[in-house]
Amino acid sequence: MKKNHYSLWKILNERGIFTVKNRLKVSKQRIKLPDGKIIDDYYQVYLPESVMVVARTKDKKFVMSKQYLHGLRQVSIVLPGGMVEKRENPLKTAKRELLEETGYSSVKWHLIGRFVPHDNQVCGKVHLFFADDVKWINNPVSKDLEKTKIILMTEKEIISAMKKGGIIAMGTITALTIAKIKLC
Amino acid sequence: MKKNHYSLWKILNERGIFTVKNRLKVSKQRIKLPDGKIIDDYYQVYLPESVMVVARTKDKKFVMSKQYLHGLRQVSIVLPGGMVEKRENPLKTAKRELLEETGYSSVKWHLIGRFVPHDNQVCGKVHLFFADDVKWINNPVSKDLEKTKIILMTEKEIISAMKKGGIIAMGTITALTIAKIKLC
Repeated sequence: MKKNHYSLWKILNERGIFTVKNRLKVSKQRIKLPDGKIIDDYYQVYLPESVMVVARTKDKKFVMSKQYLHGLRQVSIVLPGGMVEKRENPLKTAKRELLEETGYSSVKWHLIGRFVPHDNQVCGKVHLFFADDVKWINNPVSKDLEKTKIILMTEKEIISAMKKGGIIAMGTITALTIAKIKLC
Repeated sequence: MKKNHYSLWKILNERGIFTVKNRLKVSKQRIKLPDGKIIDDYYQVYLPESVMVVARTKDKKFVMSKQYLHGLRQVSIVLPGGMVEKRENPLKTAKRELLEETGYSSVKWHLIGRFVPHDNQVCGKVHLFFADDVKWINNPVSKDLEKTKIILMTEKEIISAMKKGGIIAMGTITALTIAKIKLC
């Protein structure tokens, strides 16, 4: 195994070939692999950045949201989160989305990771936050297209829901796992 | 919370607006929400289906691959897997990819889930398999663009790698979590 097997691919050129403003962009890259080989048509899909929040109350319950997910064509229990707005800092998005979507707030925030949904084609960027000792402030005021039902769940209930197929969103499963391993 | 809050959205119309054959398709949907509201421009991104394999040896080690992931612009430890080829059954893909990419084979296969990378925009479909008591057959013969290094890891080593940022791919983290909860 030569060292350069792990080298980054070199992007020789990238041009946008299809764009829907503020929604998505498809680009075509010309790539040089570590062994020198040239790939003329490697496609990337860029979607808006988003945040996801693992929010835990003082008595160790997690603030979850039950809702329809159109990408999955199914209802699932997911973590609160949403799109990063223009010129918005992801931490601000996380605080705003948690309050709007669930009515909970926290003064203890930690960034615990940044993830990309698709290993090859990108498809967005997710900033993952952990909010501890969250407190209920007021009723949710979310303007999202999806209507949500807020549920408080223990870790045991979350694991049981994953087992039974009640939590099927990749971002949510990744975020809960990383939070568990790094913090909880 | 009315019952219909969880109803599926109704796709009134969908038309492809940008396609790269066998690689990706962007479509625009006209949607009717459960409350009757119409959304005229909801975009979906379709990418090829893929498989991911949680492969475990008789002595409880997991077959992992260290490689560069262009979507992440980083090296990560990932599960073996790959694209489902035309007219290929996903289980056949899983068996083929495990053998080609790692040199391991199994007679004990279980489908443990199907996942979608993006909650709203789709971005592919991942068939997740668990292969137990895998055995080393021969050297890998993968023709993937990425060069890989095969590593056998215990569960403890996997958790430690996740903690340190050595495993950062969402699909891999989701798959390992689901396998752990459902089977291991």
